[in-house]
Amino acid sequence: MGFRVGVIGGGQLARMMIVPAQNLGLDIKVFAENEGSSAAKAATQVGDYTDIEQISEFAKTVDVITFDHEHVPISVLEALESAGVSVQPPSKALAFAQNKLSMRAKLSELGLPMPDWAEVTSLSELQEFIDGHGGSAVVKTPIGGYDGKGVAMVSSAADVSVWLSPENLAKFGGSLLVEEKVAFTRELAQLCARRPSGEMRTWALVQTVQKNGVCSEVLSPAPGASDAVLHEAAEIAMRVATGLGVTGVLAVELFEAADGRILINELAMRPHNSGHFSIEGSVTSQFEQHLRAVLDLPLGSTEPTASHSVMINLLGVDDGNDFVRTYPKALAAHPKAKFHTYGKSARKGRKMGHVTVIGEDADATRAEALQAAAVCLQG
Amino acid sequence: MGFRVGVIGGGQLARMMIVPAQNLGLDIKVFAENEGSSAAKAATQVGDYTDIEQISEFAKTVDVITFDHEHVPISVLEALESAGVSVQPPSKALAFAQNKLSMRAKLSELGLPMPDWAEVTSLSELQEFIDGHGGSAVVKTPIGGYDGKGVAMVSSAADVSVWLSPENLAKFGGSLLVEEKVAFTRELAQLCARRPSGEMRTWALVQTVQKNGVCSEVLSPAPGASDAVLHEAAEIAMRVATGLGVTGVLAVELFEAADGRILINELAMRPHNSGHFSIEGSVTSQFEQHLRAVLDLPLGSTEPTASHSVMINLLGVDDGNDFVRTYPKALAAHPKAKFHTYGKSARKGRKMGHVTVIGEDADATRAEALQAAAVCLQG
Repeated sequence: MGFRVGVIGGGQLARMMIVPAQNLGLDIKVFAENEGSSAAKAATQVGDYTDIEQISEFAKTVDVITFDHEHVPISVLEALESAGVSVQPPSKALAFAQNKLSMRAKLSELGLPMPDWAEVTSLSELQEFIDGHGGSAVVKTPIGGYDGKGVAMVSSAADVSVWLSPENLAKFGGSLLVEEKVAFTRELAQLCARRPSGEMRTWALVQTVQKNGVCSEVLSPAPGASDAVLHEAAEIAMRVATGLGVTGVLAVELFEAADGRILINELAMRPHNSGHFSIEGSVTSQFEQHLRAVLDLPLGSTEPTASHSVMINLLGVDDGNDFVRTYPKALAAHPKAKFHTYGKSARKGRKMGHVTVIGEDADATRAEALQAAAVCLQG
Repeated sequence: MGFRVGVIGGGQLARMMIVPAQNLGLDIKVFAENEGSSAAKAATQVGDYTDIEQISEFAKTVDVITFDHEHVPISVLEALESAGVSVQPPSKALAFAQNKLSMRAKLSELGLPMPDWAEVTSLSELQEFIDGHGGSAVVKTPIGGYDGKGVAMVSSAADVSVWLSPENLAKFGGSLLVEEKVAFTRELAQLCARRPSGEMRTWALVQTVQKNGVCSEVLSPAPGASDAVLHEAAEIAMRVATGLGVTGVLAVELFEAADGRILINELAMRPHNSGHFSIEGSVTSQFEQHLRAVLDLPLGSTEPTASHSVMINLLGVDDGNDFVRTYPKALAAHPKAKFHTYGKSARKGRKMGHVTVIGEDADATRAEALQAAAVCLQG
């Protein structure tokens, strides 16, 4: 076993894996979709990740294959595994990430807490679920969809009648997933990492704030979370990782209901936006931990480096914004803020970077992070 | 002004600049001496740094030129500056780093504390200095020399008679530097960073431990240093930076004498081994600060992230050692230790990497760092 990691996908997650790879002296190679990707510094190949021949060639240059995203076809991953390639997380785990219905079924089998759900194939089945849940529900396409795409809030089955056409239904895998619309008070995320040989580590539960379906802010640890909730969330993530056979970093997105219950919303089997705070806010960042985990190396401490960490996403304000104009002002005003930019061309609403502040006072830390992000975005 | 930094030299210092460059979204390019350098991930050109034509071509691709080492000929730097290239630190500062006699003369002019010294060109002049300083002295070749090379402890001028031959003397610039052998109790180092526009920041004074003329250990902050000494050391570094026109990171190596005086030993006008702790131990690492400084961007906070940081160099044990064998054991035993390896081929005594531990208890932090290094080196 060597220490050569191959990452499929050249986005910011791959980019942020380059740092710990270099620190630890691990050889990292990235298979990017195009030239000039966020992870261009480590891109050794540019191509089509659905092409088994290209991916097989890439796999020959590394000791383990892992991912910047969850979109590589399962058939490609299975072919790699059949050829003896170490794929982490393995295809059988990623199959749950790629099909929300399989995921719900598996989590139900494991007895994990989540919203009520059902598989529906017709308007009448969907309407029945809506009627049985107070007149509203969330409909999701089982296959595809991220950052709010492929998700619809409905009060009538007719709202998504187009998704139920035989043609579209076939695209989504033959049925739709419908879930109870949870009256949540806030959203949380629990990260953990797991090695193929079984070792697991969790970070403290975080609160995530979404705007327009995109994460805007992460507070670590989740303010006011009781020890019982912190413990329960960590247990849930470890049971998911073990039950689904996930390796590397797993992010479990959670709803906190008004009655205090926490319910599983979504899973991500890779480093996740909710864990970016860990670059400065934890002894071991999620990116370092992911590399250690997929290489089956011992995991690092997930202790916090300060009492509070706050991460704010830098979302593109307009097509021209690239921080060159605002950096001098932002760095001068916020010498303790850590700015990260992803080397992506600017587009309104796009995740262009993030800023993290760590500190001992929760309110002051959050205020500084919000101000630093505002100066960086608006100048 | 853009944010493209060109680094001449592909060693571990350039390598460690790649991380903050990528975090901040700065474009970093490295001019390396050879293929497969430590900084290969950012190496865009491989060539001879004494060749003005090659360096000029490289300079056209960036907004500022800075360095992994201090060996680029002043004539090359002056030619770049004449052509309008921003060279940071500038040639007039680096001239002091390249000639220890000019450096001593300039520091004397600034009235800074240092060992007695003299310029000597003959055996009799050297013997006179030795006789006047208790029968021993340190002789240094003004030009060249690093990590203990070009330095001799003498008790008689005859010990370095070969250096005083007309042929050798010409190579060293026409004379030798002789310095008082200071009865120091320990060695210290003071880092600071300075922007072309004048802003400066200092880190807390550190203690350095040398073995066989090579740094083996750094303790931050220097144990037991009084507020007066911390303040004096910071003042010295800022006066050196300003007086010599240094930009970027400056390391001032200091002796602490038995009577409590601190005296300037050597200078380094670049990130320095004594500052590696700052990657984890400071809000802003010396590598990030160096990039900000040479780009004339506002400097970051140099506050510590913990009460104590200890860095241990990983020096090659034998030609076969590359940590692959020992990482699983070292990472398992020390989940809080941060290991850094430089991607260099192993050689006995070579700086192959370092390990840093931060913590609240000085003794426990040092013990853990020493143990982590030992496991990594010996398995």
